[in-house]
Amino acid sequence: MRDKLKNLKYVLKKFHEDNTVIKIDNLLIGEDFLMIAGPCSVESEKQIIEIAQSVKQAGGNMLRGGAYKPRSSPYSFQGLGETGLQYLKKAKEETGLPIITEILDVRDIDAIGQCADIFQIGTRNMQNFSLLKEMGKTKFPVLLKRGFAATIEEWLNCAEYILNEGNPNVILCERGIRTIETYTRNTLDLSAVAVLKKLTHLPVVVDPSHATGRKELVETMALCAIVAGCNGLEVEVHNYPEKAMSDSEQQIYVKDYVKLVKKVNILLSTVNKMEEV
Amino acid sequence: MRDKLKNLKYVLKKFHEDNTVIKIDNLLIGEDFLMIAGPCSVESEKQIIEIAQSVKQAGGNMLRGGAYKPRSSPYSFQGLGETGLQYLKKAKEETGLPIITEILDVRDIDAIGQCADIFQIGTRNMQNFSLLKEMGKTKFPVLLKRGFAATIEEWLNCAEYILNEGNPNVILCERGIRTIETYTRNTLDLSAVAVLKKLTHLPVVVDPSHATGRKELVETMALCAIVAGCNGLEVEVHNYPEKAMSDSEQQIYVKDYVKLVKKVNILLSTVNKMEEV
Amino acid sequence: MRDKLKNLKYVLKKFHEDNTVIKIDNLLIGEDFLMIAGPCSVESEKQIIEIAQSVKQAGGNMLRGGAYKPRSSPYSFQGLGETGLQYLKKAKEETGLPIITEILDVRDIDAIGQCADIFQIGTRNMQNFSLLKEMGKTKFPVLLKRGFAATIEEWLNCAEYILNEGNPNVILCERGIRTIETYTRNTLDLSAVAVLKKLTHLPVVVDPSHATGRKELVETMALCAIVAGCNGLEVEVHNYPEKAMSDSEQQIYVKDYVKLVKKVNILLSTVNKMEEV
Amino acid sequence: MRDKLKNLKYVLKKFHEDNTVIKIDNLLIGEDFLMIAGPCSVESEKQIIEIAQSVKQAGGNMLRGGAYKPRSSPYSFQGLGETGLQYLKKAKEETGLPIITEILDVRDIDAIGQCADIFQIGTRNMQNFSLLKEMGKTKFPVLLKRGFAATIEEWLNCAEYILNEGNPNVILCERGIRTIETYTRNTLDLSAVAVLKKLTHLPVVVDPSHATGRKELVETMALCAIVAGCNGLEVEVHNYPEKAMSDSEQQIYVKDYVKLVKKVNILLSTVNKMEEV
Repeated sequence: MRDKLKNLKYVLKKFHEDNTVIKIDNLLIGEDFLMIAGPCSVESEKQIIEIAQSVKQAGGNMLRGGAYKPRSSPYSFQGLGETGLQYLKKAKEETGLPIITEILDVRDIDAIGQCADIFQIGTRNMQNFSLLKEMGKTKFPVLLKRGFAATIEEWLNCAEYILNEGNPNVILCERGIRTIETYTRNTLDLSAVAVLKKLTHLPVVVDPSHATGRKELVETMALCAIVAGCNGLEVEVHNYPEKAMSDSEQQIYVKDYVKLVKKVNILLSTVNKMEEV
Repeated sequence: MRDKLKNLKYVLKKFHEDNTVIKIDNLLIGEDFLMIAGPCSVESEKQIIEIAQSVKQAGGNMLRGGAYKPRSSPYSFQGLGETGLQYLKKAKEETGLPIITEILDVRDIDAIGQCADIFQIGTRNMQNFSLLKEMGKTKFPVLLKRGFAATIEEWLNCAEYILNEGNPNVILCERGIRTIETYTRNTLDLSAVAVLKKLTHLPVVVDPSHATGRKELVETMALCAIVAGCNGLEVEVHNYPEKAMSDSEQQIYVKDYVKLVKKVNILLSTVNKMEEV
Repeated sequence: MRDKLKNLKYVLKKFHEDNTVIKIDNLLIGEDFLMIAGPCSVESEKQIIEIAQSVKQAGGNMLRGGAYKPRSSPYSFQGLGETGLQYLKKAKEETGLPIITEILDVRDIDAIGQCADIFQIGTRNMQNFSLLKEMGKTKFPVLLKRGFAATIEEWLNCAEYILNEGNPNVILCERGIRTIETYTRNTLDLSAVAVLKKLTHLPVVVDPSHATGRKELVETMALCAIVAGCNGLEVEVHNYPEKAMSDSEQQIYVKDYVKLVKKVNILLSTVNKMEEV
Repeated sequence: MRDKLKNLKYVLKKFHEDNTVIKIDNLLIGEDFLMIAGPCSVESEKQIIEIAQSVKQAGGNMLRGGAYKPRSSPYSFQGLGETGLQYLKKAKEETGLPIITEILDVRDIDAIGQCADIFQIGTRNMQNFSLLKEMGKTKFPVLLKRGFAATIEEWLNCAEYILNEGNPNVILCERGIRTIETYTRNTLDLSAVAVLKKLTHLPVVVDPSHATGRKELVETMALCAIVAGCNGLEVEVHNYPEKAMSDSEQQIYVKDYVKLVKKVNILLSTVNKMEEV
């Protein structure tokens, strides 16, 4: 076994025979295929409810939307904060979709806990060990994105930080790594998904939106991810991508999400068929 | 359009409405799905013929095998050279499979031309401009692997070198790039395949063996590549991987190749079906 | 000007004619050459006081020592926490050396503020925007390390986060980036220092210990950094490196620090002389 | 010892107690400090002679100039070829400066051998093993540039290819590696120089021009390289950089080269002084 995996006590398959399943309402993450969709940022009540309804109708089973936004520049839109959380709550009331949203600060756990079903830890905070430990002391499900320059082993150690504090509800999310290729925003590392499905019992989700940074590549990479063995997808969907307040290049149109869901379902049944060969 | 693509005159889709199709015997590369398989290195007459027969039987339609080997160390096995070419020729006579083998030196074009149907230019020679120009003056089909730290745009410019000299028969092969991840030998960049299928009319092949460097990941990544839109696969297959004289970690067993071919066929028909959505 | 620098309002030279000078006791950072030294972690009262005395005697002018340690594995030594802060305070009382120590959690600002003269924000927290904003609301000097996969432009934007909240006391610290080279722990990017000295009025410090991860390279890279134009060095020094509880490979012996300080002084005077050419 | 260095038989210090010294005319490379300067490309007889005279006068001791140019695009200036070699020969006759020029193709060895004192193997050809072996069969000194994504260990193995064929006259040249930083053309890896000076007896030269890709950084990085322990510098100098047919951004003015040489001399004497500490 590789060195950095030697001391792990929780996240590896050998410590947990069955795959981890996380129950949220009627959704069994790890068993049911997770279809997270929604805008990069919550921009208004109308916007998030409208998109939530579209996501629901298309067949998505979870709503994403950022209220606290980690932005490279201090002068970019920083999110609506607590107001954004309120809008997400309303969107859930309207549609019944569970909510995932990002946490940036340990002091926001309570506020976010009022509204979110899953806490997202973003790529820049993967090694924010204070945040990992604090989330480990709760039972809230955590979706832990891979650091954009983190190895698989470092990532598993970060998940271990959460489990080691007593919270077993961790989902890993591959979202691309920074490489010498600049045509795409990042390079989606699907081998990492295949590796993780061998190493760990935790569910693995793929985010093709941040990985590619380009609308026109999202569908193809989402479908590839299914063959790599992922347990779900997180896709940025907007009703008016060209007017989005952040990440406008990579959010897809609702009509394209509808199409994507259909293809996902076709492909999932083929993946099952192939397993019997 | 991105800067480095601006001056291209041949490889982009807009200069060549139809996808390039390269005919080798009865095989139409670009239309038929290309299934290249075989050992890293030609090691003996018996070895290459035996593997060729297995590849043929499994459903592969082209044989690979290195006679001239580019090795990091001068003290590693450097290939059988011209003798290796003779063995490849015999393997073709026995099985009818067309041959692909690597060229390292412009002075070997004639010798390799006696035996090979496709010349492979390896990752370390992607920007060996002398070799590119010289191959451009022939009509031999060339499979041009991506440099392990080359961008998509640099790669397309290298293909352009060949077309610009008059040889239109170029196939691109994604084989992984060097990144911060060390668990896999390289990081397979499937977004690059999706990007290329939008930008160029040239066929695109994927090599999951060098990309992952690990037997147990080859099948999964090969299947992902199909969904990314590739026109073929190049897979290292050996009858006794553990005894191979090079790359023993990444060559798969014949029985696993048999299984892979079956899954490829199932998946190809699903990909067609999804296109109708 | 490059895109990501366009919106900056504080950190660029054009907004602040004179170089920033930060006064700590009698030390004028930005004018006087800053010589930070000390162990990776505070391990005991005796250890930190002993090393502080050695650093002082050698000619160092600031003591480093981690009380809260960001470690890749949850099972590695996590630092002594508040007890460590107390030991640092005593070391200051004994030697008069000002203190720099790392902050991982916004909730520790007050505690650390009782003891530290400079707050260090580590490589993994460079884009911990909550922490940046919170430090921006204080007047405590902040040494902001470069993210190990961050560009110069992203780094300057993170400094801008702090200045934009009202705190002008920011020092940048280059500590190596993750690259394809694995012989060294990271790759020290001295061009970044040269670039920063052209772009920004903020002081720039170099940490050759984390950059190289190897004792035997620390002196040479520290001296190179001076020629690159840095305003100071942060060097890991231990009285018994081989027994250190963290980073034992890269901490240098006290006797080697003594030698380094002598060379630094010789070189600084040459750098001044060269400026007159 | 790290794995990839285990099988080496020639390039490591332990096989060759004294540092390698290569004699060219009166120049002892490895002992005398090598100051290579000249344009990226030979553009005309007048241009190269004029620059050669300036380089000589400034204190440079070797002239560079590309006759065969490896260009990313087939539509960029490809060099004057054999005519360029003739011009280099005349420049040598005029100034007495020995010549270094790049080889791209094994078939050009004889022609280049008529004119050049050192053969340069460029970054893209570092692992062109045919070329390495062929140069190993000659006695021509070879300056082997580091591949832009090659590790130190791979690089030493490439030097070993040349020595293993019988040619001991190899100089290594660090010229930057491709990283996540895009502000500079590459990232100059000066730790690699420090590492090489510990591992190998071969002379090590640094090229700050390709490393940075920016005129304004060349001087600073050249001086840093001296402190890192290099045995020489290769700097692109042009009489009219803004009109250069290639690399116009990174070639420095003659007047700046004059200044650089003065600073190099000051710094070299300080480096000697520091060794006595």
